[in-house]
Amino acid sequence: MIIQRIENSRISTFDPNNFSFGNTFTDHMIICEYENGKWGEVKLVPYGPLLFTPAMMGVNYGQACFEGMKAYKDKDGQVFLFRPEKNFERINKSAKRLAMPEVTEEMFLDGLKALIDVDRNWIPHGEGMSLYIRPLIFATEEALKARVSNKYMFAIVATPAKSYYTEPVSVKISDHYSRAASGGVGSAKAAGNYAASFYPTQLAIEEGYEQIIWTDDATHEYFEESGTMNVFVRINDTIYTPPTSEKILDGVTRDSFIQLAQKNGIEVKIEPIKVKDVIEAQKNGILKEVWGVGTAVVTTVFQALGYNGEKLELPTISDQESYAVMLKNQLVDLQNNLSEDPFGWRVLVEKNVLETV
Amino acid sequence: MIIQRIENSRISTFDPNNFSFGNTFTDHMIICEYENGKWGEVKLVPYGPLLFTPAMMGVNYGQACFEGMKAYKDKDGQVFLFRPEKNFERINKSAKRLAMPEVTEEMFLDGLKALIDVDRNWIPHGEGMSLYIRPLIFATEEALKARVSNKYMFAIVATPAKSYYTEPVSVKISDHYSRAASGGVGSAKAAGNYAASFYPTQLAIEEGYEQIIWTDDATHEYFEESGTMNVFVRINDTIYTPPTSEKILDGVTRDSFIQLAQKNGIEVKIEPIKVKDVIEAQKNGILKEVWGVGTAVVTTVFQALGYNGEKLELPTISDQESYAVMLKNQLVDLQNNLSEDPFGWRVLVEKNVLETV
Repeated sequence: MIIQRIENSRISTFDPNNFSFGNTFTDHMIICEYENGKWGEVKLVPYGPLLFTPAMMGVNYGQACFEGMKAYKDKDGQVFLFRPEKNFERINKSAKRLAMPEVTEEMFLDGLKALIDVDRNWIPHGEGMSLYIRPLIFATEEALKARVSNKYMFAIVATPAKSYYTEPVSVKISDHYSRAASGGVGSAKAAGNYAASFYPTQLAIEEGYEQIIWTDDATHEYFEESGTMNVFVRINDTIYTPPTSEKILDGVTRDSFIQLAQKNGIEVKIEPIKVKDVIEAQKNGILKEVWGVGTAVVTTVFQALGYNGEKLELPTISDQESYAVMLKNQLVDLQNNLSEDPFGWRVLVEKNVLETV
Repeated sequence: MIIQRIENSRISTFDPNNFSFGNTFTDHMIICEYENGKWGEVKLVPYGPLLFTPAMMGVNYGQACFEGMKAYKDKDGQVFLFRPEKNFERINKSAKRLAMPEVTEEMFLDGLKALIDVDRNWIPHGEGMSLYIRPLIFATEEALKARVSNKYMFAIVATPAKSYYTEPVSVKISDHYSRAASGGVGSAKAAGNYAASFYPTQLAIEEGYEQIIWTDDATHEYFEESGTMNVFVRINDTIYTPPTSEKILDGVTRDSFIQLAQKNGIEVKIEPIKVKDVIEAQKNGILKEVWGVGTAVVTTVFQALGYNGEKLELPTISDQESYAVMLKNQLVDLQNNLSEDPFGWRVLVEKNVLETV
């Protein structure tokens, strides 16, 4: 690893009690360039701009995929990653589907640990606080040809993240727009999937909703995801979530919720969720909860479902009775080293990693 | 328009008889930045790199769309664009679907004409020669939040283009992968659509084909597009092409082929094309031609269709009998000012445009 540390940290400009998520960047970033069929050496460099022309293939032909993950600081200042090997596996799954070169475990995990260690002062401590980390791969060759790029960049950048509490939201069950085609790239964290979701979401907002529950593009009869998250439904005391597929992202938070629920003795059914069954359960009063899960906000609870022009209210349920809240709290406690880790999900980020590289 | 001309042209390094399409760039480029809800002034600047960090939203969330168009030089050195208003309309259609700001006609057309005029020496003259032009819009805000960007760049870059003759190719009719979802972004020239097509195309190449005929993702029973082009089928003496839709790009070359065919008295049916009907026509010997059309190569003729593991050969047909070749030649002659232009498709690029801006 090539190390180029900043001369003067910007940390004094960072107020952990007053910052904006997503556009405050830590001092450093990881970059690694792919050319002539192979990855070069990983570099830790000051966070900042690089030189790209508008002919960069990444913004012309969309070969770009990313991961979202977090590092957590406990009361003793120890820093932990959460299941980073899952993100490593998934970025390569995304890269393969987009015909991009896969990254090595060394590039990904060592890069991650070096960046987090050197910028560990940027990780806020406290309820809901963390460092949001963005590994990504994008095509960098300058060429106006609709073909696979010959040059790529792997990068990791990071931004401090605040409390993930979000108000319950109303979601529209999509009856026209969709986020994934059969035989498409829905299961990849492909950059283009996000751009495609913005306009339908804007339309849903105009109709009085905050998000969309995506349904299958052919019939709109089955739940797929909600917003940029995986979706869970609780009918009576059973939790349902759709199986992952080429259309549904294999979410790390999704998988963690399933395992935590099972550990709590809750029945989890991983099977296709029919829109009609959810609506019928709502009418019959047995639909207890619907929520989305993802790394950035952990859980967003839904208070109403838009379907066929109707806004169907979900029951108000106390935090004590809510599976969504219980599982979220258990997950967050585990991530923040406030509870045991029977799954082995936490990964300690050693201090002074760079001295051993 | 802000003008910043290069001090020393790189034109002496450009050999019009020996250059590589797509990575030889002309001296200048157009850029225009969007911020605080509005576009700034259009700038003509030297082609070259700009500063972007890996947190640029364009490569994280895929808000990026483009156009492909060409300028042609006739024997007298006059330069023409071809139906540029169609590309202007379409880039805004793409932008809208991706929740990006639309560009003004002035930005698009004046920018285009200024760039082509100032770099007119880069346009090679001769059979199949042209200047390939790439207008694009991409998100430039630095932020790790899956939401609409607040900053964008509109840019136009250009590369000299060579003869578009391509050998007839074998194409696989897709039976699993797809390029567009119902309710998705297939009709937009969205960057992500191209990245999504590369891996399936690589698999088709491994099976002995050069391209894919994309079919609908739900049933794979209907033709949609071929490779990055619109598709035409000739059965007996009738031409078929699928209607444009939210899944099928409204191609300028497609529309021009339709109008030229009709002018030649050829029956054109714009209707869904069933895979089964094409296969049956092939077995019955009445399938005469299948081809793709697009700006970059104008026409790619297909020699065989892969279907259900079989490679079905198309008949060999002379250039004189081929509708694909006839229509292509008529289009190219019109574009290059070698024939009349009854449609009013050619747009002359005036000399010394910049002096009047």
